[in-house]
Amino acid sequence: MSPPRRVQIVEVGPRDGLQNEAVNISVEAKVALVEALAAAGCKRIEAGAFVSPRWVPQMADSELVFGELKKRASIRYSALVPNIAGYERARAAGVKEIAVFGAASETFSRRNINCSINDSLQRFWPVVEAARADGVFVRGYASCALGCPYEGRIAPPAVVSMCRTFIEMGCSEVAVSDTIGAGTPTQARDVVARVADAIGLERVAVHFHDTYGQALANIYACLQLGVATIDGAVAGLGGCPYAKGASGNVASEDIVYMLHGMGIETGINLEALCAAGNVIATRLGRESGSRVGRALWK
Amino acid sequence: MSPPRRVQIVEVGPRDGLQNEAVNISVEAKVALVEALAAAGCKRIEAGAFVSPRWVPQMADSELVFGELKKRASIRYSALVPNIAGYERARAAGVKEIAVFGAASETFSRRNINCSINDSLQRFWPVVEAARADGVFVRGYASCALGCPYEGRIAPPAVVSMCRTFIEMGCSEVAVSDTIGAGTPTQARDVVARVADAIGLERVAVHFHDTYGQALANIYACLQLGVATIDGAVAGLGGCPYAKGASGNVASEDIVYMLHGMGIETGINLEALCAAGNVIATRLGRESGSRVGRALWK
Repeated sequence: MSPPRRVQIVEVGPRDGLQNEAVNISVEAKVALVEALAAAGCKRIEAGAFVSPRWVPQMADSELVFGELKKRASIRYSALVPNIAGYERARAAGVKEIAVFGAASETFSRRNINCSINDSLQRFWPVVEAARADGVFVRGYASCALGCPYEGRIAPPAVVSMCRTFIEMGCSEVAVSDTIGAGTPTQARDVVARVADAIGLERVAVHFHDTYGQALANIYACLQLGVATIDGAVAGLGGCPYAKGASGNVASEDIVYMLHGMGIETGINLEALCAAGNVIATRLGRESGSRVGRALWK
Repeated sequence: MSPPRRVQIVEVGPRDGLQNEAVNISVEAKVALVEALAAAGCKRIEAGAFVSPRWVPQMADSELVFGELKKRASIRYSALVPNIAGYERARAAGVKEIAVFGAASETFSRRNINCSINDSLQRFWPVVEAARADGVFVRGYASCALGCPYEGRIAPPAVVSMCRTFIEMGCSEVAVSDTIGAGTPTQARDVVARVADAIGLERVAVHFHDTYGQALANIYACLQLGVATIDGAVAGLGGCPYAKGASGNVASEDIVYMLHGMGIETGINLEALCAAGNVIATRLGRESGSRVGRALWK
C-alpha cells in the first residue's frame, strides 16, 4: 500500500482532550472551540460525552454544548456514550453520531470502565443496536491497543478480536487507540495491519497519544498501510504537556503540518486550526501542546 | 532497504544544543553533562566548538571542556571548527574528531557563516586537508537540507552537490541537517535517498530539529532507507521548547525510545540518558524538551 491522497482528521479535542484536562471550561468556551474547529475545516468533531457527571465532570454539560452548536450539514459531530442511558441522553440532544469505548486490556477495562471486556461488549450491544435502528453512525474505540498501564503490551490477537467484535456488532469504524502513548512505529504498523486485515482498511481509524513523542512516527508508519482516518486533538489537549506522565492526544496541528508536507489533503486550514488551538490553550492557562502551534502562530 | 539492526546516536547536545541556549553554564556543568552522556552509553559526543567567542560565547570555554574530559578510548569526542585557526585550537586541545558546518542555502550561508557556499567550501578545504593529515575524522554538516528560513525549500540537487563536495574534500561523513525543522517525512526520505545514492549510505547521518514536531517521523522515514547514524541532543537542547519559533534539536531520549521499541540496538541506557537530560534541563532552569524524559524520569 501507499499513503492515501486524502486523510480525514477526526478532531477529538473537545471530548477526549477536554475530559482529561484539570481545568473545566464554560459551555460557551466549548462551543466556541467546536465552532472554530468547524470553521478551520474539520469535518468530524467529537464534541462531548454522555457519561456520568460524577466520573467525568468535564463532560457534564454536553447536552448544553450540543444544544448550542450551530449544526452544519457538512460536519459530523459525535459524542461518546457508555451505555443505553447515555445513548438516550445523546439522542435527546440530537446527536447523529456516537462512539463507544472499550479496552483491549482486561485489567484496564475493569479499572477504567468497571467491567470485564466481555461485559463491556454486552453493554455496548443494545447501544449499537439502538443507534443503528436510528441511523446513527457508531465508532468503537479499542483502547490500550499498543499497551496498557497495568499489563504492558497487549497481544495483537486480543486487539484484533475486540475490533472484529465491534464491527460484527454494527460499528462502522474502529479507532485503534494507543491510550497511553507507549507504542512505537513498527508495533503500530503491525497491529493496525492485522486489524485492517480483519475488518477492512476503510473501517480503521488510528488514535495516538504523544506521551513519549512517538505519535507522528506511528501515524507515518500507518499511512504507509493506507490508513486514511486519523484522530487528533487541537493543541494536544488531554494532559498538560509538561506534567509527569502526561498523556495528551497528538496535536492535530502537527498531524496536519506533516500531511500537507507530504502532499496529502485534509481540507483543513492549518493557520485557522493553530489559532483555535492557541485560543483553547490560553483558556486552559497553559502553552499549546502543539509544536506547530507554538512555532508558527503564538 | 529495511531498517538497520543497530543505530549509532551522535549526541550533539553539548555543542549544537548548548550553543543555542540563552543560559550559559559552567565548564564543570558541561564536563558533567558529557561524562553523564558517556556513562549512559553514548559513543559519539560533539562536545564543543572552536569558533569565535564573539559570535558564540556559549562555546568560548571549549578548550577547558576538552582539557577536563576524561578521555575514554571507546568514546569519540568531536568539536566543530569553522576554519584553520579553529582547527589549530582544536588540535592543541587534543581533539581527534571534527566537524565543519556548511549550508545548502546560499542566503543562509551568507547570513549565518558570512560567505557564499563556494567560499565556505574553500575555507573548509585546508581544514579537512590538515585534519586528514593528522588522522582526524571529519564530518560535514549540510545544513538547511530540507528548508531555509530565507529561501524556503532548497533544491535537492543543491543538497546532494554540497554533500558530494564534502566527501570529495575528504570528509568521512555528512550530516544531512534540517536546521529549521521544517521538513516532513516524504521530503526527508527523498533528499536523504538522493544523498545516499551520491555518497554511499554508510557515510550519511541525519540531523533533525523538532520545531514542528516532525523529527521522529522523519527519522522513521530515513530508517526505512537503512540510515544508521542519527543525531540527537539530550533533553532536546538548543532552544526552549515553549518559546515561539524554538528550534531545539530532537531529543535523544525520544529517538532511543523509538529505536528500542523497534528492536533496534543503540548501546544506550535510556534511563541513564533521561537522567542526564533532566539534570541539564534543571541547570538551564527549564523543563526537558524530551517527552520521554518528562514522562518517565522527572
